[in-house]
Parts: sequence; structure tokens; C-alpha cells
Amino acid sequence: MTRQQLTEQIFSKGTYLCVGLDTDLTKIPVHLRQHPDALFEFNRQIIDATKNYCVSYKINTAFYEAYGVKGWEAMERTVAYIPKTHFTIADAKRGDIGNTSTQYARAFFEAMDFDAITVAPYMGEDSVRPFLEYAHKWTIVLGLTSNAGAKDFELQQAGEGFLYEKVLTTVGSWGNPDNLMFVVGATQADAFANIRKLAPQNFYLVPGVGAQGGSLADISREAMISDCGLLVNASRAVIYASTAEDFAVQAGAAAQTYAAEMRSYLPAKA
Amino acid sequence: MTRQQLTEQIFSKGTYLCVGLDTDLTKIPVHLRQHPDALFEFNRQIIDATKNYCVSYKINTAFYEAYGVKGWEAMERTVAYIPKTHFTIADAKRGDIGNTSTQYARAFFEAMDFDAITVAPYMGEDSVRPFLEYAHKWTIVLGLTSNAGAKDFELQQAGEGFLYEKVLTTVGSWGNPDNLMFVVGATQADAFANIRKLAPQNFYLVPGVGAQGGSLADISREAMISDCGLLVNASRAVIYASTAEDFAVQAGAAAQTYAAEMRSYLPAKA
Repeated sequence: MTRQQLTEQIFSKGTYLCVGLDTDLTKIPVHLRQHPDALFEFNRQIIDATKNYCVSYKINTAFYEAYGVKGWEAMERTVAYIPKTHFTIADAKRGDIGNTSTQYARAFFEAMDFDAITVAPYMGEDSVRPFLEYAHKWTIVLGLTSNAGAKDFELQQAGEGFLYEKVLTTVGSWGNPDNLMFVVGATQADAFANIRKLAPQNFYLVPGVGAQGGSLADISREAMISDCGLLVNASRAVIYASTAEDFAVQAGAAAQTYAAEMRSYLPAKA
Repeated sequence: MTRQQLTEQIFSKGTYLCVGLDTDLTKIPVHLRQHPDALFEFNRQIIDATKNYCVSYKINTAFYEAYGVKGWEAMERTVAYIPKTHFTIADAKRGDIGNTSTQYARAFFEAMDFDAITVAPYMGEDSVRPFLEYAHKWTIVLGLTSNAGAKDFELQQAGEGFLYEKVLTTVGSWGNPDNLMFVVGATQADAFANIRKLAPQNFYLVPGVGAQGGSLADISREAMISDCGLLVNASRAVIYASTAEDFAVQAGAAAQTYAAEMRSYLPAKA
């Protein structure tokens, strides 16, 4: 998917919500747990109920790997089921030496047809490049994450600034705003204005709204640009809005609530 | 596996070789490529031929994920096939916020019974802790890697020293030498003596010998401790020693050559 295609979706639907499919069999409604393909069936109903209120789905690979082959099958079925109008993200946090990152790129961009994958920057340029080489695919590199552990390395001094600042500027020089996004946690709202200076045109994937406590209003005010430049993810707050039989209806309602707030923050179409 | 069990294997067999199963269907012998489970069949023959000369196998998850469900099945079959005497490593470079790392730990320590997993440190303590919480399992955190990209962040100044030095000392305080190892690339031999000062008792997983050009003699001289403290990995140099029908015999011979050299560097039993 190109940036123009993504932004057209955002402005035509009035939402920049990404729904995170962190699907956990111990948290889905009881009546679905015995389904022979419970992970996919839960996702299918969530997607049907939320697709009008979001522009993206993020599949957290860990939750599928935990179920082995059946989990991987459910991931493949889920990404194939998501409408082509929606931007699909493999939240995989991969990254290894060049010949290995090439294999990860094949896994997520070819064997499965994700639009984007999240990548950890620690190993440097040759660990990121293989993902950037795919036309119309996106690499989403960890910048400043939403978790407490961000303080351990990301927020440590590295040269003139923090390590995450060096990551934004260095990785930024390897890609461009049409193939490179950054993960910036919603819990880091104080840093958003500074981050926009360092990566002025890139889209940010923003987790941490909802269960982790970040403010949609704050991040939208600090980091939105003329063509939006934000995909804000909510996982647990949407998909586990209810654990009763009406879970999909409630997930749709939760997504609709986010979308309504987002519409109020979007600028006039770029 | 405990440290004592691992070191007993090392000293009784006179080798600290880890064989890396970076199995790629485009590189295995032609006569095997049409096999219905070619990835596993190749691995099975490699394991049978090399198991007397190594103490560990490292499965590079990227190479299996690239083949989708069939690849994941082959990974599961392979780790189940490896003799329990051998230390099994999921070279997965995972790491995410706490509740997600918990799912990765379930995938590799429970759904599959790996002894160890490699983990990227960028996201900090809560991304590493869930792996450390498993008894008799090992977390192998990226320290200073073997690739060119190591210069981009790992070898950047961070506070008093390089970022990788901060990673070694900070992560070192979260675990202990009985559950925490570090990845240190064989191509970084100049840094090994310094690294041993910062992480004096941890085992190191050392990739980069063979195809990447690191020297077994150099790293063994600089970093070996009384109970060895090293697992040196060779992947392509062993498993692709030949692409003819005798590939397994040639892989065994390559592993035996490494093992013979390693025996000459090992100290008298601790």
C-alpha cells in the first residue's frame, strides 16, 4: 500500500485507528474457545465488526506463535481475511543480520502479504535494509516505545541526545517517509513534539492508548501533520471490550468511539 | 538445561560447537528438495551426522517462518528430534512489552521445548524479564553482534562507554550466569577481552565463525573461562559443506574439524 492509498482511507473514513489483534484464547469469550479455529473465528468476527471504524489491523505475532502451527495457520488466515483497503501490520519486532532479515522479509511480505512489519533497530543498517527494499511495503522501526523498559536504553544518553533520537535520525536516513514509519508509544506524549522535529514527515505507529493509559488527544495534538501521519493502535481496549456473546458488537462500539474522537482531530484533507 | 549439565557435555565431548540450522531450500542438495518435508529431512540427516561433534543446535527461526506453516512444522519437528543431551537455541531475536514477551516465552519454552532463546535488548527490562523467569531455561541477549551494522548503535557512545557495554552491564544485573548469556560476534575479537571484564562469568553465544570470517583461535584465547563459557556457532560452513549427495558426511567432517580445534583450546576440566 502506498502512502497516498493509506491517507485516502484515513480521510475518507475519518479515522486513523489501528486495531491490534493480540488474540489470546484465555481472554476470548467462553463460547468461542472450543471452536476448531478459535483464534481465526474470533478475529473474523472482530474484523467484520470494526472494519468501518479503522484503517489498519496489527497482528501481534507472539500471540499466534504461542499456539504453534495452529497459531501460525490462524495468523495466515487472518491476514488473508482482512480487506485489502486496510493496512496490515505484522507486529513482529524482527531484526537480524542481513541474510536472516531477508528471510523474515520473505515470511511477512511474500509468504504472507502484510503491508508492514515492525523491526528492532539494535543490530543496525544491514538488519533493517532487507525490509526497506520491498516496493510498496513498509518498515516500522522501534523509536520510543510505550513500556517502562524504554528508560533502560531508549532514554539513555547516546552522544548528543537520547538513544531513541539517534535511532530516529540514523534510521531515517536509510529509508524515506514513503516506506519507513516509527513506533512511538502513546505514553510518551511529552516527547512527541521533539520527535516530530526529528522525523517530521514519517508516519508513527502509536501503541499504548487504552490499556496502557496513553491519551489520544495529547498525541494527536502534538504529532499530527497535514496528511495525518499517525496510526493509533488500540488492542485490548477494543477486542476485549466485552467477553460476553456480544463481544463483536461491543468491539465495534469501542472502535466507533475511538473513530469519532479521531474525526474531531483530523485536519481538512491535505 | 543447567549450566552444570551444559559444561559436562562440553568437557566430556571436548567441544563447544553449536551447529546453526539456517536451513534454506534453495541451498540444500537437489535430491532432497522434492522431499515432502525437505526442511526436516535435511536437518535430521545433519543432526545425525554432527551430534557427536557439537553440544548445541541453533535454529534460526527466520528460515522456517519464510516457509509459513510448513516451515513452523519443520521447526517443531526439528527441535523435538534433537537429542536431549544437546542445548537447543531458538535464534529468534524476540523482545516486546512484557505481556507480549510472555507469549514469546510460551511459544519457545512451552509450545516448543527450547533450552534458550535469543532476545533483542532495545525495549529494556520488561521485554527481557519474562524469559528470565523460566527455571532451567536461558535468555541470550544481543551484546555486540557480528554484522557491519553493529557500528550504527551498538558501537555508539552511550554514557561512559559504548551502547553494547551498557547493555552487558545493565542486562547482566537482571539475570545471572546461570540463566543469562550474551551474543558476541566472532568478528569482534578485538573487543573480547574488554567484554570478559564486563560479563566475567556469563556464557557467550558466538556466531560469525566460518562464512562471516571470525577466528576461533582468537575468540577462544580472549574469552574462554575455566568452565569454557563459550558456545561457538557455525552455520553455513557446516551445513552447506557440500551440496552433493554426501552432504551429511561432509557436514559431519566439517563439525569434526571444528571440534578437534576446540579440544586443543579447552582447559583441564573445571
